[in-house]
Amino acid sequence: MANLPSIPKGTRDFSPEISAKRNYIFDTIKDVFRRFAYRQLETPAMENLSTLTGKYGEEGDKLLFKILNSGNFLKKVSDNELCERNTAKLAHLVAEKGLRYDLTVPFARYVVQHQNEIIFPFKRFQIQPVWRADRPQKGRYREFYQCDADIIGSNSLINELEIVQMIDEIFTKLNLKITVKINNRKLLAGIAERIGFPEKFTEMTVAIDKLDKIGLEKVYEELIQAGISEDAVNLLEPILNIGGSFDDQMQCIEKFLGETESGITGIQEIQKLFDYISLFSFNNNIQLDLTLARGLNYYTGAIFEVVSDEVQIGSVCGGGRYDDLTGVFGLKGMSGVGISFGADRIYDVLENLNRFPENVISNVKLMFVNFGAKEEKYCLPVLQKIRNADINAEIYSDSVKMKKQMKYANSNNIPYVAIAGENEIRENKFTLKNMQTGTQELVSANQMINILSE
Amino acid sequence: MANLPSIPKGTRDFSPEISAKRNYIFDTIKDVFRRFAYRQLETPAMENLSTLTGKYGEEGDKLLFKILNSGNFLKKVSDNELCERNTAKLAHLVAEKGLRYDLTVPFARYVVQHQNEIIFPFKRFQIQPVWRADRPQKGRYREFYQCDADIIGSNSLINELEIVQMIDEIFTKLNLKITVKINNRKLLAGIAERIGFPEKFTEMTVAIDKLDKIGLEKVYEELIQAGISEDAVNLLEPILNIGGSFDDQMQCIEKFLGETESGITGIQEIQKLFDYISLFSFNNNIQLDLTLARGLNYYTGAIFEVVSDEVQIGSVCGGGRYDDLTGVFGLKGMSGVGISFGADRIYDVLENLNRFPENVISNVKLMFVNFGAKEEKYCLPVLQKIRNADINAEIYSDSVKMKKQMKYANSNNIPYVAIAGENEIRENKFTLKNMQTGTQELVSANQMINILSE
Repeated sequence: MANLPSIPKGTRDFSPEISAKRNYIFDTIKDVFRRFAYRQLETPAMENLSTLTGKYGEEGDKLLFKILNSGNFLKKVSDNELCERNTAKLAHLVAEKGLRYDLTVPFARYVVQHQNEIIFPFKRFQIQPVWRADRPQKGRYREFYQCDADIIGSNSLINELEIVQMIDEIFTKLNLKITVKINNRKLLAGIAERIGFPEKFTEMTVAIDKLDKIGLEKVYEELIQAGISEDAVNLLEPILNIGGSFDDQMQCIEKFLGETESGITGIQEIQKLFDYISLFSFNNNIQLDLTLARGLNYYTGAIFEVVSDEVQIGSVCGGGRYDDLTGVFGLKGMSGVGISFGADRIYDVLENLNRFPENVISNVKLMFVNFGAKEEKYCLPVLQKIRNADINAEIYSDSVKMKKQMKYANSNNIPYVAIAGENEIRENKFTLKNMQTGTQELVSANQMINILSE
Repeated sequence: MANLPSIPKGTRDFSPEISAKRNYIFDTIKDVFRRFAYRQLETPAMENLSTLTGKYGEEGDKLLFKILNSGNFLKKVSDNELCERNTAKLAHLVAEKGLRYDLTVPFARYVVQHQNEIIFPFKRFQIQPVWRADRPQKGRYREFYQCDADIIGSNSLINELEIVQMIDEIFTKLNLKITVKINNRKLLAGIAERIGFPEKFTEMTVAIDKLDKIGLEKVYEELIQAGISEDAVNLLEPILNIGGSFDDQMQCIEKFLGETESGITGIQEIQKLFDYISLFSFNNNIQLDLTLARGLNYYTGAIFEVVSDEVQIGSVCGGGRYDDLTGVFGLKGMSGVGISFGADRIYDVLENLNRFPENVISNVKLMFVNFGAKEEKYCLPVLQKIRNADINAEIYSDSVKMKKQMKYANSNNIPYVAIAGENEIRENKFTLKNMQTGTQELVSANQMINILSE
C-alpha cells in the first residue's frame, strides 16, 4: 500500500467521537456566556500582518503563521533584498497576511474598526481556532481553540463579579471542582512600590507567579537576579507566606501597603469585588491569592486564574481587567475585563476523570437492520416517523450480513437496533433490541418511539 | 483620528447580529444532519500542500493560500533558484502547508489516513471555513463556510433518498421553497455515447449545464466549438427540449439511449431512486432534470442541485455520487455520495425574503436598569434567579443616565427592561417594561420569570 497521507505536525483531526466531546464543552461554555448576555463575534482567520505584528512581543512575532501573497509574491522584492536572504525582513515583503494568534487582538481591532456602530459597553464572546508556529509537544498544538468572553467600555466591578459567576456555573455544569484565584494588579504595583522597586514591577510579578511551581527559595533567587536588593526581597516575606481567611489576608496586605496610591485603589477594588461575591453562594472555592500575578502585560486591575481541584494540570481558565487594550489601534480610555477558557485542558481533565456524560457520543438512538428491498419499504416510513419525533436514527444502507450491521451499530454506540423480518411485518411490529442489555421485545412503531424518547 | 484598522479584502467580521443569523442556518442544517445519523468531523485549517495540490485543477492550485514555512524559509532554496524568480516553483520550496480549499479533499484524506479505524459506511458532516485566493467580488469571499454531509463506503441508493429527504427537511425548517433537481451522470455518459462522441463527455456536460443561463442557441454553438459534429448536436434536440412528467421524460430518454451500457444502468438507478422518493411526501418539488450536469469531474452517478423558487440566485445546494474520491490517496473502490449547502447564498435568500425568525437576534430577554449600589444589591440576586430559570438576562454594568441604559437595551433588541427604585424595593417588586409596546407593570420576581418564560 502507498504511504498514508498525513496532516501538518501540531494539528489534529477531530473524529466524530472527539468532536462530540469537544462540542459538549463548547456548548456548555456558550450557553453560560449567552445566559450572561455575551454575544457571539467571529473574525476572519487571516488578519493583516500589520494588525498582528508587535502585539505579542518579539517571541510572539516569530510564532505568527504568515500567508504567502498570491501570484507573484516577489513583486516587491529587489534582487539585492533577495540575495541578502534576510528572512525576517523578506517575510514582510512576501506575506501581507497572517493567521490569528489569539482572539484578543482581533477583538481589539474589531472594536476600534467598528467603534461608531458599537453601543458600549460591548459584551462579546468568541470561540474560534488560533494558530501558533510553536514547537509542538504534548498538550501544545499549532492549531487550537480559544473560548473568550470580554466586556469593554465599562469600569464596573459587576463585570468582575459576573466573570466569577460564569466560571462557577460553567465548571458546575461540567461537573468539575475548581478553585478561582483572584488578585489585583494594583496590589502588586503597590507591593513593588512599597519595597522600593516600582520599576521592577514586571520582573517581580513574573517571579512571584512561579511560586507554586518552583517554591520560595527559587523565587527569592529570581528576584535578586532581576536586580531587586536583598533587603527589598526580605520585605516581601509576609506577602509570599500569606495565608488564612480573606479578612486575615486583607489585614496583612493593608498593613504592608500603607499609603501607596495604587495599593489603596487595589484594596478598594478587591474589597468591593468580594462584597459582591459575598451576596451569592458558589459551588466552587473563590479565594484571594496575593501571589497570583499572571503573565500578560496588559492586565491592570483584577486578575483571575482557575485551577482544577482534582487534576494537577495548570490553569484551565484565566483572565483579568485591562485599561488600554484598544489604545494600540488608536482608541484610548476603553477599560474592559475578560476571561479565556482552555478547551484542550478542560477536555483532558474531563477525559482523565471520566466525566464526559454517557450520552455525549451516542446521539444516534436507533438503527434499523436492512434485510433487503421488501423490508426497506416497511422500515423507511417508520424511520421517518421516528426522525419526525426528534430522534436521531438511521437504517443500515445496504442489505449485508447481519453481523456486519450489528458491528456498525456497536462501533457507533447506537443503543437500540430495530429488526423487521417476515414475522414482524405480518404483525405490523418490530423487534427492538437493547444493545447494552441484549434484551429484545416486540413493539409497535409508536411503542418504539415512546421507548426511544425516554 | 488615526486610520482605522481593517481586515484583508475578501474576508469578513461577523457581528453579533450576523453571527446569530448564521448560527440559525448552521444549527438548522446540523440538527437535520444529526437526525439522519451523520456525525461531525473537523479537520485542521492547514493541510500539507502535497495533499491539496493537483486536486482542484490548474486554476485551483493557483487559488490555494500557502503558508510561509517558519524560521528560515529560504533554507531549501539555492541562490540560483532564488535569482530565477520562478514564483510557482519557489512557492513550493518556501511553503509546505496550505489552507483548506474545500471540505471534500480533507475528508478523502481523513478517510484514507484512518481507513483502519473507520467502520464503513462512514457518515460524516463537516461545517468549517475554507479559503480561496479568488478575486473578491459581490457574493464571493476569500474565506467562507461550507456545510457538507457525505456517506462513503455504500452503494445503496437509500443514501441518495436520504440526501433528498435532508434537503427537503432543511429548507422546510428554514421556511424556504425550493426545487431539487436530480440527474445521473451515467445518463449523460449514455447520451454522449449515443450521439457518437463518448470522448466529448466532459465538454458536452459543461455546455449542457449552461442551458438555463445561456439558452439553447448558445449551447449548440458551444457543443460545435467543442468538436461535436452538427449531426450529433442535432441528435441532442429531444434531450435539450425534454419536458413533461417524470414518466414522459423517462420514456423519452429510454427511447433515446437504447442499448448503451451506461444508459441502461443510469435509467435503472434513476428509476430506483424515484421509486424510493415516491414512498414519501415532500414539501418541495423534486424533479428529474436531464439537462442538469454539474461541473465537478468526480461525480459518477446521481447528481443534485437545489434552486430557490422565490429568489433568483443560482444554486443554494448541490452534490452527487462519486465512485472514486479516495483513489487519489491510494484507497480504491470506495463509493460515496454527498451534499453541500451554500450558507452564504442561503443567508442572502433569507435576508432578501425577510425570513429570519424574529427571536434569532434577540436572545437576551431582560435588562435590569442600574440605579446604583443599593439597587444593584436588590437586583443582582433576582437576576441570578432569572438566569437559573434558563433565561438570558443582564444588568446594565454602570449606574449611568437612564437614557443611555435604555438606548443600550434598544440597540441590543432586548424585549424587556426591569426597573427597581425606592418604591419597587419597598414593595419587593419590579416595574417590568415591554420595550415593544411600551407598557409597564408592577410584578414580583416570580411573576417576571413567568412572563419572560412565555
